Amino acid sequence: LKLILIGFGVVNQSLTKVLSQKSNDLLRKYGLKPKIVAVTDSQGTAINPEGLDPELLLRVKQLKGTVGSYPRFSQPSMNSIDVIENVDADVVVEATPTLGGDPEPGLSHIRKALIAKRHVVTTNKGPLAVAMPTLLNLASKNDVRLRFSGTVGAAIPILDLIEKCAKGDKIVSVSGILNGTTNYILTRMAEAEIEMKEALKEAQRLGYAERDPSCDLSGLDTARKLVILANLAMGKQASIKDVEFTGIENITLNDVLEAKKASCMIKLIGSASDRLKVEPVKISYNSLLCVRGAMNAITLKSELGGEITLIGKGAGGPETASAIIRDLIEIKCSITESIARGKILQ
Amino acid sequence: LKLILIGFGVVNQSLTKVLSQKSNDLLRKYGLKPKIVAVTDSQGTAINPEGLDPELLLRVKQLKGTVGSYPRFSQPSMNSIDVIENVDADVVVEATPTLGGDPEPGLSHIRKALIAKRHVVTTNKGPLAVAMPTLLNLASKNDVRLRFSGTVGAAIPILDLIEKCAKGDKIVSVSGILNGTTNYILTRMAEAEIEMKEALKEAQRLGYAERDPSCDLSGLDTARKLVILANLAMGKQASIKDVEFTGIENITLNDVLEAKKASCMIKLIGSASDRLKVEPVKISYNSLLCVRGAMNAITLKSELGGEITLIGKGAGGPETASAIIRDLIEIKCSITESIARGKILQ
Repeated sequence: LKLILIGFGVVNQSLTKVLSQKSNDLLRKYGLKPKIVAVTDSQGTAINPEGLDPELLLRVKQLKGTVGSYPRFSQPSMNSIDVIENVDADVVVEATPTLGGDPEPGLSHIRKALIAKRHVVTTNKGPLAVAMPTLLNLASKNDVRLRFSGTVGAAIPILDLIEKCAKGDKIVSVSGILNGTTNYILTRMAEAEIEMKEALKEAQRLGYAERDPSCDLSGLDTARKLVILANLAMGKQASIKDVEFTGIENITLNDVLEAKKASCMIKLIGSASDRLKVEPVKISYNSLLCVRGAMNAITLKSELGGEITLIGKGAGGPETASAIIRDLIEIKCSITESIARGKILQ
Repeated sequence: LKLILIGFGVVNQSLTKVLSQKSNDLLRKYGLKPKIVAVTDSQGTAINPEGLDPELLLRVKQLKGTVGSYPRFSQPSMNSIDVIENVDADVVVEATPTLGGDPEPGLSHIRKALIAKRHVVTTNKGPLAVAMPTLLNLASKNDVRLRFSGTVGAAIPILDLIEKCAKGDKIVSVSGILNGTTNYILTRMAEAEIEMKEALKEAQRLGYAERDPSCDLSGLDTARKLVILANLAMGKQASIKDVEFTGIENITLNDVLEAKKASCMIKLIGSASDRLKVEPVKISYNSLLCVRGAMNAITLKSELGGEITLIGKGAGGPETASAIIRDLIEIKCSITESIARGKILQ
């Protein structure tokens, strides 16, 4: 399986590390032999059709700040779109960041890759939040897969679980804590009785919040994940425009302490039933969604199965890498299958 | 997909109901057109290669107590083994009860069905708890599937989730509350401050406990589920003999109240890491496993993904039926695939 990695931040670096550590396991258990043939980051590109060396990629990135410094195989003239369109590969792993509300450059990367008939694995919520139905259509038209397990609750195989639950049953609502940063902040405000500013600083120091936390605090990150969940679980054709969202910026220490007096916590809850909504909600200590720290918690309600709740860490490098690997295994299986089917037609 | 139903208690009656209600959905979404060609219960057998009528099956069972009274197609001379070996069918759905420690008659049903090259879906823990590795081997040798999603946490697709999680990651431990009956009893003892005897009566009145609750109270039911989980999640080759188990029979109201004082609850926890163990454990209100009522809760710990916890109802007719339907869809997919592969070889 030849891979192009677009973006080489925490996620794709973790993936590179794990692929190299687990190569024996992946080959033995799944016949999966991934080969990284190209990597681009914001400052450079490295390409080798025979495969780039994972260790060397990581070292170069760490020492020089860009894969563009990879010895011998640097290709300064090619940008990410050139790579996607021209390098021979099976899968494009798109893991660039979404900054603010802009779905680019991820959206173009995914679109071009699908048109070039490459399977896509992405951990990028922005493009899906604005154009998920269109992109899934485009994938199906080009007979390739678009997988995105890393976008929601990375460590929790929630998207896989939804596909399973939906088999022979019908999911009627989804709700939960989809953002670990805000959960950490709200938890710390309640536990240590500190102001949001202070809790945020703590979260940043521990790596739970980014330097610019506005996307988390405003509810935008939760809203994006909710779009992805609702489209997949409930067959909606929603985009970010369909979500009413309120963030936690205006929650005060006083609000948190009032809730505490009533044995409740304030949580930023995303919920999808008839409408898609994100807002701070006061929930009881006894509620299954009342999880602490940076945890995510998601409740699915289905016709036959009733309510199921999943709790786990939402993000982190290794967790997201494990989600990408699940997607790669899915794709490998579907390639094997379609080769099998294709041969019948001949 | 031609089905033989062995046993016609709550589970297979629910399945029959759901299959009839959802037939359009199943056909449209999965190309699945299940046809019940034979049903046996402890008192009789009905067979029709053209398909038995679901509504009529349910009515006859309700009015006469046995499918043996099904008009025209009753076959009093055939027992369940005869049916499994001689009626033409794709899948045997085994849902007889396991009484006490005896894995029969389920074990023979499953074995004969696999040898007759029929796929098997079972909700019966007993046979798997004593012979899971052997039965899985037998299935693989006969090129058929043995699925058992309904045996553990029916409403929670925990076995499917384990298969997913294990892809490209490694599950290192499993622990949780696997029995809703004991959880209900322990919860009520703590909440209402009542003796176990009283809580048990309440559970029986509400249908959470059977008339003979010994299998739940002794920890045997939890131990069986633990064997299934550990074998699947961690590649163990365990049987019930490998589990050290202690039940809740000796837990007193006093124990429960002592725990309560320390903001803890006593729960019957099954856990698998190096060893397989079932025992009452005092756990804190803050623990994710501290769920109330008849809920099940399971925590998986994996190398990359960290800890994931799933919470949901463990049992119930419709929930178990939904698990069987997931298994039937899996089997349908694997049949389609193997036809595709088979054609290549020709």
